[in-house]
Amino acid sequence: MIARFPGLTPTRSRAVVHDDIVLTVAVAPDPVTSSMYEQTAKALARIDESLALCGSDKSKILSAIVYVADIKQKGEMNRAWDEWVDIRNPPMRACLGVELEPPHIVEIVVTAAK
Amino acid sequence: MIARFPGLTPTRSRAVVHDDIVLTVAVAPDPVTSSMYEQTAKALARIDESLALCGSDKSKILSAIVYVADIKQKGEMNRAWDEWVDIRNPPMRACLGVELEPPHIVEIVVTAAK
Amino acid sequence: MIARFPGLTPTRSRAVVHDDIVLTVAVAPDPVTSSMYEQTAKALARIDESLALCGSDKSKILSAIVYVADIKQKGEMNRAWDEWVDIRNPPMRACLGVELEPPHIVEIVVTAAK
Repeated sequence: MIARFPGLTPTRSRAVVHDDIVLTVAVAPDPVTSSMYEQTAKALARIDESLALCGSDKSKILSAIVYVADIKQKGEMNRAWDEWVDIRNPPMRACLGVELEPPHIVEIVVTAAK
Repeated sequence: MIARFPGLTPTRSRAVVHDDIVLTVAVAPDPVTSSMYEQTAKALARIDESLALCGSDKSKILSAIVYVADIKQKGEMNRAWDEWVDIRNPPMRACLGVELEPPHIVEIVVTAAK
Repeated sequence: MIARFPGLTPTRSRAVVHDDIVLTVAVAPDPVTSSMYEQTAKALARIDESLALCGSDKSKILSAIVYVADIKQKGEMNRAWDEWVDIRNPPMRACLGVELEPPHIVEIVVTAAK
């Protein structure tokens, strides 16, 4: 049984649930700030929303892959992450510097349990 | 129970199945075109082949991570994606600009259900 | 049921187990060599440790995503990979050039069965 939650375009889903696993991705929604801290906080808030749609929440996140457009700003991303994360249930996480489509400077892919 | 399908080199698999989950990766097979649209279409065709080997198909894809060598060509990748995707069953997808080993300019990692 | 194994910082886990799936990430631990071959070998040894903590081992790896800071050094990464991998049970693998936080030049994300 697979459930799909619509994204911004019809050819992709915002989140997909299969059995008890949730896969979701987020960037900061419009209007997009140029601050790494703020974009990260907004992307994480959107992850919260998507997890809620799927019947999950951040305490059940298994892994997060955080893509940033500038690895030198990892500290600012971390600041938003550390304020947001469920400290009793920290996910596995990797942070990687990649090219993202402007104006986005952070994109987060999450695997969670339901 | 884990099933593995051989890739181009003996130290990696083209696809791996565990329970009802399929993990597979593809680039465009040789001969490699320099067009993002064509490489993407060929990589997606190879994903179709791998999913079929594993008893799955594109309607059951949960997530796709698309790595491109030039994020400015994301539009051309999207064109191939939009023609290929099962519109009734859109996966979660992220697209990231990374360095790939030439001549490849697109590589796609897929998680699917069986 | 989710089990989490502490990482270097309290807001992330070194490995997470959910049902019979293990998610883990590793870089070379300190002191960090500047050699791609040695960093990869040490990161893979750390993957071995994490899998053991979780009741798994390299024969059960489903997929590995290998992030390198310089795709031109993929050959040196491969040399360490090929010496380490369980040749009877090769994982699906992708290798991508990204920006990593110095002094790290390789980071590996693994999904395994228990």
